Amino acid sequence: MSAQPRTETLLFAASDHDADAFYFSAIFVPDPFIAFTHRSRRIGLASQLEFARMCRDSSLDEVLPLEDWAERAKAQFGVANAQPADIIASLAAHYKIQQFRVSDSFPFGVACGIQARGLNVLPANGQLFPTRELKTDAEAAAIATGNKASVAGFKVVERMLKAATIQRGTLWLDGKQLTSERVRTAIEIACLERGAHAVNTIVAGGDQACDPHCRGSGPLRANQLIIVDIFPRVAATGYFGDMTRTYLKGTPSPAQVKLVETVLAAEQSAITRHIAGADGTAIYNEVCQQFVAAGFTTAKVNGVPTGFFHGLGHGLGLEVHEPPRVSRNGSKLVAGQVITVEPGLYYPGLGGCRFEDVVRVTDASPERLSAHPYRWLVK
Amino acid sequence: MSAQPRTETLLFAASDHDADAFYFSAIFVPDPFIAFTHRSRRIGLASQLEFARMCRDSSLDEVLPLEDWAERAKAQFGVANAQPADIIASLAAHYKIQQFRVSDSFPFGVACGIQARGLNVLPANGQLFPTRELKTDAEAAAIATGNKASVAGFKVVERMLKAATIQRGTLWLDGKQLTSERVRTAIEIACLERGAHAVNTIVAGGDQACDPHCRGSGPLRANQLIIVDIFPRVAATGYFGDMTRTYLKGTPSPAQVKLVETVLAAEQSAITRHIAGADGTAIYNEVCQQFVAAGFTTAKVNGVPTGFFHGLGHGLGLEVHEPPRVSRNGSKLVAGQVITVEPGLYYPGLGGCRFEDVVRVTDASPERLSAHPYRWLVK
Repeated sequence: MSAQPRTETLLFAASDHDADAFYFSAIFVPDPFIAFTHRSRRIGLASQLEFARMCRDSSLDEVLPLEDWAERAKAQFGVANAQPADIIASLAAHYKIQQFRVSDSFPFGVACGIQARGLNVLPANGQLFPTRELKTDAEAAAIATGNKASVAGFKVVERMLKAATIQRGTLWLDGKQLTSERVRTAIEIACLERGAHAVNTIVAGGDQACDPHCRGSGPLRANQLIIVDIFPRVAATGYFGDMTRTYLKGTPSPAQVKLVETVLAAEQSAITRHIAGADGTAIYNEVCQQFVAAGFTTAKVNGVPTGFFHGLGHGLGLEVHEPPRVSRNGSKLVAGQVITVEPGLYYPGLGGCRFEDVVRVTDASPERLSAHPYRWLVK
Repeated sequence: MSAQPRTETLLFAASDHDADAFYFSAIFVPDPFIAFTHRSRRIGLASQLEFARMCRDSSLDEVLPLEDWAERAKAQFGVANAQPADIIASLAAHYKIQQFRVSDSFPFGVACGIQARGLNVLPANGQLFPTRELKTDAEAAAIATGNKASVAGFKVVERMLKAATIQRGTLWLDGKQLTSERVRTAIEIACLERGAHAVNTIVAGGDQACDPHCRGSGPLRANQLIIVDIFPRVAATGYFGDMTRTYLKGTPSPAQVKLVETVLAAEQSAITRHIAGADGTAIYNEVCQQFVAAGFTTAKVNGVPTGFFHGLGHGLGLEVHEPPRVSRNGSKLVAGQVITVEPGLYYPGLGGCRFEDVVRVTDASPERLSAHPYRWLVK
């Protein structure tokens, strides 16, 4: 009877930026560190600089001193400087590990080094920690806190738009033109005051909003739709909020009213369909059909995509975009998934509109993790 | 005569987070995208969602539509969904590329997929773009702009500390205790108002500051050293600033005065030594010797590191920590490198002190990219 090779999970990443590393260690570390499982215990390596903090604040079962293991690797392999792969190989020898399972985003250079030391490295081919997709009550609450920071941002936008005056078609506030940049800064300050960092916040008006990832720049205009998409990360927990509202200051055209009402109706109806067992592709297709039925087609016009040309939603958690995706290639929804619902329609000339909320999938009706009115028209 | 296999550079990363991808494309994209060189032309793939923006705003020579290449890969390999590795293999076939050079942080899962399609993937084993280490005037200016955001933060700290009162040993401002969290939020707002995002800003007093990566929490106390380390990223350019100052509100002990004066003298003298051709290890060792000569030893006390136990500096640019490192294992400095100079001393009970500035290495005297007084004592 031959023994199975011992396979353990290995990470090498900075948990400030890598969601798996934070999920595994529950501590923010700015530089990449080695962490691994051994018989279901979670072990991390810390330099002197991080050792005390990692022992005290992480969820790891054991913290090993990096410098000691670097010395060990130098002796074992006869190298002047121990690379991360050397240290990992030393750990593998000590803990009798033959192969490591790693995330698909594991650094290729380190993987090559480990392989060169005779160990197997297997990519997860999917999620390293599938449980990350299914949020606990505490995680759902952390995401809801992120959305409250988004809401603080929307309240600032609404106050600014209400107080703004219209001069020759553009918006003015406190004697200065109201620009995307000014509104963005005000939003991000409001998020900071709620303990969350918002970066790349979208405040895009007119045709700029028809490019869904355009952040927006320059003066905001009256009678144009303005998309505001705020996805702040809560500093204390690392979880993101993600919400979008669309506004118009002034007087909308009938076509703009119809656009907004169509997107909002699609969003509200799609939200109710996020129930365990539902088919993501079917929910996405239904939104497409609602848009077509209302006369909003999706097609390239002069090479530019118009209509509804992005996914309906994505998982939200320690990353702002994480599994699952609800789109043309969706899958069955599972209780515990936290998903954005964000249909949008974009037509250069007419403008863009998107509404985005966040739900947790349950066996019964979806649990809403975001709440803010849809008062898009500001007089 | 056998032909050399055609090797090109390949990237697959989100340029919002990956410095190489931003350096290559000059556009911020939130999700990973494929980019590669072909005979010194830079080519990127964009989904419909990013296509127009990438054509307009990136520095790429050509942008290819992702969806078309996904269809091509599906047909070529007979798969229902084209993975990034499949699309890359299709591109390689079309452009007659046999192997790709990738960054050490290239995602292992994708590399395995590319290898499975019969292509070679070679890690850079070091920097993918060595020129990133040598900053142009425009890059140096962008880093200096980041440091101006840090300075805006220090000014806020100094105003708050000056206005604060001391009640039973802790600091109070506007009727509330002055905490690390409050000061951090005020700093990060000041950075935002300068167009830069500061995250994980350190405001750590007393023994908290002896753990150099501790962000700091809770009430700030009088007569204790407070380390403030601000490293904001300029939204427009992606470049970071990184500066540290140490403060004390109240009355310092003679030992605290000596600690601060020793660190400051070491920092100022180390700055002047950052000249092309100088040996980084020698500069680091000199700081160590200055500390020992002043009576400040470096050793573990009860398992806790004390003294000067981190590197002297690191490269700064599109990442807050990038090559080179100036430390025990330093290398010769090269003109164009932008480096932080940040000696520190840490003794639980006495407190921690660090000063950090940024220089660009030249053949003559170092070019300072940061400027702010060292008025550490606030009455």
